[in-house]
This record gives sequence, C-alpha cells and structure tokens, in this order.
Amino acid sequence: MPLPLITLTTDFGLSDHYTGVMKGVIAGIAPGASIIDICHQITPFSIIEAAYTIAQSYRYFPKGTIHVVVVDPGVGTSRRPILVHSAGQHFIGPDNGVFSFLFDKESSKVRVLANAKYFLQDVSNTFHGRDIFAPVAAHLARGTKPAQLGKLISDAFRLSGLYPTRTGKRVWTGMVLKTDQFGNLITNLPFAEFAAISTRPFQLLLGMHSITRFASSYQQAEFGEPFAIAGSSGYIEVSVCEASAAKALGCGTGTSAELTVW
Amino acid sequence: MPLPLITLTTDFGLSDHYTGVMKGVIAGIAPGASIIDICHQITPFSIIEAAYTIAQSYRYFPKGTIHVVVVDPGVGTSRRPILVHSAGQHFIGPDNGVFSFLFDKESSKVRVLANAKYFLQDVSNTFHGRDIFAPVAAHLARGTKPAQLGKLISDAFRLSGLYPTRTGKRVWTGMVLKTDQFGNLITNLPFAEFAAISTRPFQLLLGMHSITRFASSYQQAEFGEPFAIAGSSGYIEVSVCEASAAKALGCGTGTSAELTVW
Amino acid sequence: MPLPLITLTTDFGLSDHYTGVMKGVIAGIAPGASIIDICHQITPFSIIEAAYTIAQSYRYFPKGTIHVVVVDPGVGTSRRPILVHSAGQHFIGPDNGVFSFLFDKESSKVRVLANAKYFLQDVSNTFHGRDIFAPVAAHLARGTKPAQLGKLISDAFRLSGLYPTRTGKRVWTGMVLKTDQFGNLITNLPFAEFAAISTRPFQLLLGMHSITRFASSYQQAEFGEPFAIAGSSGYIEVSVCEASAAKALGCGTGTSAELTVW
Repeated sequence: MPLPLITLTTDFGLSDHYTGVMKGVIAGIAPGASIIDICHQITPFSIIEAAYTIAQSYRYFPKGTIHVVVVDPGVGTSRRPILVHSAGQHFIGPDNGVFSFLFDKESSKVRVLANAKYFLQDVSNTFHGRDIFAPVAAHLARGTKPAQLGKLISDAFRLSGLYPTRTGKRVWTGMVLKTDQFGNLITNLPFAEFAAISTRPFQLLLGMHSITRFASSYQQAEFGEPFAIAGSSGYIEVSVCEASAAKALGCGTGTSAELTVW
Repeated sequence: MPLPLITLTTDFGLSDHYTGVMKGVIAGIAPGASIIDICHQITPFSIIEAAYTIAQSYRYFPKGTIHVVVVDPGVGTSRRPILVHSAGQHFIGPDNGVFSFLFDKESSKVRVLANAKYFLQDVSNTFHGRDIFAPVAAHLARGTKPAQLGKLISDAFRLSGLYPTRTGKRVWTGMVLKTDQFGNLITNLPFAEFAAISTRPFQLLLGMHSITRFASSYQQAEFGEPFAIAGSSGYIEVSVCEASAAKALGCGTGTSAELTVW
Repeated sequence: MPLPLITLTTDFGLSDHYTGVMKGVIAGIAPGASIIDICHQITPFSIIEAAYTIAQSYRYFPKGTIHVVVVDPGVGTSRRPILVHSAGQHFIGPDNGVFSFLFDKESSKVRVLANAKYFLQDVSNTFHGRDIFAPVAAHLARGTKPAQLGKLISDAFRLSGLYPTRTGKRVWTGMVLKTDQFGNLITNLPFAEFAAISTRPFQLLLGMHSITRFASSYQQAEFGEPFAIAGSSGYIEVSVCEASAAKALGCGTGTSAELTVW
C-alpha cells in the first residue's frame, strides 16, 4: 500500500534551501512518500492567506493526505504545534489560526504535538518546519498513531473577522482575501450566497472603485473593464480581461469589499 | 508497470494554490503517477511562450509522457479543450495555439476533449486546469483510451508569424521568442540554418542594437560585450557574460531580430 | 529497492523549461527516481551562495542521495565537471567552488566526469545541467559505479575568504553569506563559536549598523528593532520581527560583519 501524500504550504519562498531541507527530512523518515507543494509563496507572516490557501486546497486531495502548513511568525515562542484531523485528512502546523477556515467548514479533532520523540533531535527556535512539522508528518505517513503524538485539545486558536457582515438592508461588507498571480481580487463574499449578481443590478465597492458588471468568463468583458465573476475559489472575484485588476484598481489583500444587490 | 509521467506547464505562477490543486486532483485519480513541473511562470496569457516552452521540452521526456499545458486566456468561452498525440507522447490543453511549434515539428493527431465523464463533476468557467485538464491527464495515465475522450479533429488552431522571413538577399528577419532567467535573448533564428555566423562576418540587429560578435561559450566574450551564441534551445541567442543581455540592450520578447550574413 | 534520491540546486530560476528538462532527462534514464528541488533561485552566477545552500542541506538527506548543483558561469569552457563522494552521499556539478564548504566539513573523494558515454549524445556549450549533470546523476542512481565515470583528482577548486578572521583582541570580521526570503541576514559567524553573545555584551557591526541585542526567538524583540539570533543555519543571523532586516538596514550578501564580544 502506498504511503499517504504529504503536502507543503509555507511562506518560505523558493530562494532558500528551507523547503528542500523539509523534503529531505521527510524522505529520510518515510522513504517513498510523495510530497506535493501547494504553495511556498504565501505572503511572509500572512496567517490569513495561509488559512485561505489550505482551505481552498484540501478537498481536492485524497483521503489520508497529510497537509503541512508553516506560516509561523511565532516560531520559538510558546505558541503550540498542532495536528488537526478533519475531513478524513491530517493537517499539521502552528496553532496561530492557519486552520481557521478549515475549522469552520469541517468538524475537527485537534492535538498538541508534544512528543519530542517524533521531532528532530535538536529543535531550533527558528525553523520548526524542518525540526518538528516535517518529521511529524513523515512519522504519521509511516503509520505513527495520532494519539502517540500528543493529547486532544479544544481551544485551538481561530482568526476573527474572516467573514462579511450585513451592514445595510441590501448591503454586505467583506474584504479582499487574496490577490492571485493574475491580479484577480478574490473577496470573501461567497458566490453561492450572492449568485443574484449574475442576473440582477448590483454594486460592488472595492475601496474607491465601483464595479457593476458581471461576466461569466474572463473574455466576456471588454478589455480594460473591471468585472465581478464567480471565481474558482467559490468567492466573488474582481478581474480585468488579460490584465491585473489589482494594478488597474490599486487594490489588494485587505481592501474592503461592499456589495449591494437590488 | 509504472504509470506514465505527467508534466505541467502553466502561467499560474507559484504564489497561489492553483498548481498544487491540479496535483491533488491527479493524485486522487491516478495514485502513484509522477508529476514534473516544466514551468509555471509562463508570462501570463502568453500563448507563444507556452508554445515555445513545450516545444523545447517534450523531446527530453520518455515515450508515453502526458504533457498538460494551461495558458488559457479564453477559459470558459467556446475555445475547445484538446488532446494531441505526437512523437509517442500526449499533450493536453486549450486549442488556442499552445501546440503550434509542436504541430510544425511532428505529425499529430488531435482530439476534442468532449467526454465530461472524465472531468471533475462541477466544471468552473475560470479554472479548467483543475476541472478538465488535470483529471483528463490522470485518467489517460491510468489507461483510459484516447478515443473515449473525444473525436478526432483536423482544424486545430495554430499561431502565425512564428518563423523568420527572408527580407533581403542576405537578410532574414525574425524576433526574440523568449527572454530567459539570465536575460539571454532567445531569437527564432535556428542556429543550424545560420551556423555560418560562427565563421563569417554577420550583423544581428536586435531592435536598435547591432551585434557582430559570435562566442562559443558565455565566458569567451569580454565582460559587458553582447554576443551571439548557439543556444541550448537550438536558436541563436544574444547574451552578455554574467549579465542580462535583456537589461543591457533594453530588449525583450517580441523585439525584432534582423540577421545579415556575408 | 528504491532508487536513491536526486536533488537539484541551480540558478536557473523557475521561469524557463531548464529545470523541467533536466527532470525529463533523469526520468528517461532512471524511471522511478525521486527528484527533490533544493533551490533553483540561487542568485545568478553566485557560486558562494550555491556552496552555502548545498552545505546547509545535505545532512538532512538520506545516505546515498545524489545532489546535482549547477551554478556554472564557466559552462562550455575548460572548467571540469566533477563528482564528489562525501558523507555517504554524491555531489555532481562544475569544479568552480560550489562544493567549497562541503570540502571543509567532510573528507571527500573527487572525480572528473570524463566518460561521455554517460552524457547526452549532443553536448551543448551552454547547458551542461541537461547534457552532462542530469544524465550522470541518473546513471549513478541506476547503479553505474563512480569509477566508470572518471578518474580521481586531488586539486578540486575551492573558494577562499569564506570564513571570519580575527581582527582584534575581542574582534572577528566576517560577512553576510546570504539574505533569505524573510530578509534575515545570515552571517558566516558560527553561533557555536560565539554563543557568548546570548549572555554577554557584544556589538555586531553590519556595514554601518550596530546591533547589540540578542533574541532567542523572532518575536522576543520589539517590532522594528534589529537583533542577532542563533539561526537555523548554525550561523548568527540578524533579523527584525516580522520584517526584513535586509531592507531595514540596507544590507545584503557580502556586507561586512564585525563582531566584538566583551
């Protein structure tokens, strides 16, 4: 039987040896385990972006997959390393909110990683990806039972302010969660809840910009014209055909997004 | 027998979950399939760069390899998803010209991907890499027959203007196809056809700049001096020793390249 | 028995097909070999950064791993391609100093790669990663004996100036070896030798900036305040909490680092 997949999501970037070394540690403990990079270019220290990224990804992976998420500005402090069991998969990372969206979507069991037997021998204060999270993932892939790794807890940390709030009779206020590679501005407004924008008049205020056009594909709009679209993320995105909406509008992650639907 | 390799070439960049999710989809359908990234940093929407990249790559892969190429500004419109069989390998992507160089080098059979049974259940209008191309590649890797995926067509789309033209008695006019990581300017002038530049006087006009020096290795030229070289691509490249020719000359992809050989 | 791992460390970046093609060559010769990217974003032509990167990485990989390091400004000249056997692992790359730190840490046997039977058939003057280093690594993974690849040599090239020197009674002068993704400035001052900075007064002069604060984790310091820390690299690093020390101090690779400990 093949070993479960291990995925990596970090803000380590790709200009250092950090992700390569994590893979070496995994290969040493669990030879033959397949490792998939989800993303290593999370904006440095952005816990919310990590939370968005893993929440967007896990449901496309097979049962049993072990996801390692390391965006960890508090490394070396008292913040806890945790293991989460959700949706038939495992998630490993710091207890700083990186699993916030996951906790809201799925019922989860959370353990503190407390058994140093499954860490590297010398644990640094600056690189738990290498010293704790990678070796624990590898041991789990080889068959170590979650209960051996640490005790269940019920007070895992969650970020607040992730969801839009109703701010008027027909008005909801959210924000831009992520600016993607193409400059698409991904809001936290779920398309399924506001699908009416595809057929009814609406205004989406993104910072100072008013978007009133909906398009069902990127090329349906005029060149240069910003429009709202049902993104592959499940959220309303704002895009410009073959250009960056982020640059065109001067908006980015954190920009407020106020939607009015009539 | 091991599963065939699957390669990925996209303009998705590496700052999102998009390529990771494609790999999750493949791993779910074809567990154990090896996935190799050719490049995810194709200039966004640049079909010609994608066409160049896959044409440079496929012959270094084993027979049976399945190449997925997703540079797809027309996603969600009526442009067709296709499967190409060429040189004993498979190529999957949009019918927008990304296989133009391949079609010119190899005799090819092309099918339209029409059997939604091999797609993800909900196909978005914005991310066919995840919803169509990745699952089809995985099913193909597992043994699904091409004929089950869709019918043969003979009108696949090809880009025009890819090749240099003769514009004088001793003059050919082409262009820069690609600027690489080092700032090397890769023209579409095949070195094999113009190998005389290594022994005879020539002038290569790149935009406003005249190059008259040929070097057989990067360090053969003086520091700072631009020169022509036989690139690993098979094309004439313009380089500067340990520096970026693109920056030094202010040229880039699309710059005209006029070669005179005496 | 599974094939040994092959790792890749290059300055090829990720915007071209170069690393993908190396992997295709390996997969063609040694099907089933696992390939791990250590880093492809070494600063172009920076041999010292490559030397640092592989020296930081190899000890986290299993015995038998084959490391391919291609930062090779002299490609196509008379510089030799070499195979190094150190610490139970193999290292392949140009003889230009990329293994300097490794040679200092481990006793090594070095061979010149001279047997063209194990290269691709047509060897270019510009891309030995594809034409020499990748195929040799793959043949080695499949079981080719090192002695078949070429003869032992004893004059492999080493960089000089890699280590700090004593420049006063209590003063050592080194430099910044690497600026990482987070803007941490990694010096060549080994923490183990200067561990006294965690308990005694010290001054670290980084260019024009004086650092006198030690922190045991990133979040122990005030926001905005630069501090010295025991890096995961084993060296003293200079960091700023949740910000880039490189930007804050205007320092980078090569900046002098003068340490006084009282």
